[in-house]
Amino acid sequence: MAARFIALFNQPEDPEAFDRHYREVHAPIIRRYPALRGLRLTRAEGVAGRSSPIYLVAEVAFDSRADLEVALASEPGVESGRDLRNFAGAGVTLLIADDASTLGA
Amino acid sequence: MAARFIALFNQPEDPEAFDRHYREVHAPIIRRYPALRGLRLTRAEGVAGRSSPIYLVAEVAFDSRADLEVALASEPGVESGRDLRNFAGAGVTLLIADDASTLGA
Repeated sequence: MAARFIALFNQPEDPEAFDRHYREVHAPIIRRYPALRGLRLTRAEGVAGRSSPIYLVAEVAFDSRADLEVALASEPGVESGRDLRNFAGAGVTLLIADDASTLGA
Repeated sequence: MAARFIALFNQPEDPEAFDRHYREVHAPIIRRYPALRGLRLTRAEGVAGRSSPIYLVAEVAFDSRADLEVALASEPGVESGRDLRNFAGAGVTLLIADDASTLGA
């Protein structure tokens, strides 16, 4: 069953610098993850006229939870975690969304 | 182009009561949204042994941003917003993720 690693990036002080770093440095590291199935980068927008505390939603997709765990423990996995310091100073929330763990509703 | 309304629910004090309310009251309201394409409810897990500040990721999918806006302004859209008071006291972050607005990376 598929699983996603999701990073919710808070609004950066300098969005242009953030975008540039993500594009030129961070995304290329993620693309080296073993068994990566997809990288989806969506800008978050606020609801009902409110601004969003989150700037970017990064969803890193794998075919399985096991593949996700292998990727995070791999050399690019460790490197991408370390690289957060270089551009995510405004804060980032990291989570795992495993399709095997849903609210049956 | 598709768009998602995403609700990130913080860890509730009483997860069982939260789940029950989501299942029995909140999800049925969302299922009345016009032009709803999908409701994906994934429990969030922390990364690298850390606990996650987020408990549940609710992704409400539409075929277009226009459909999303119509749904949020509809009677069930307003009702679901009002219902947050009844079970999301621990906090919720609401955002729109529009596939037309990505970081090209």
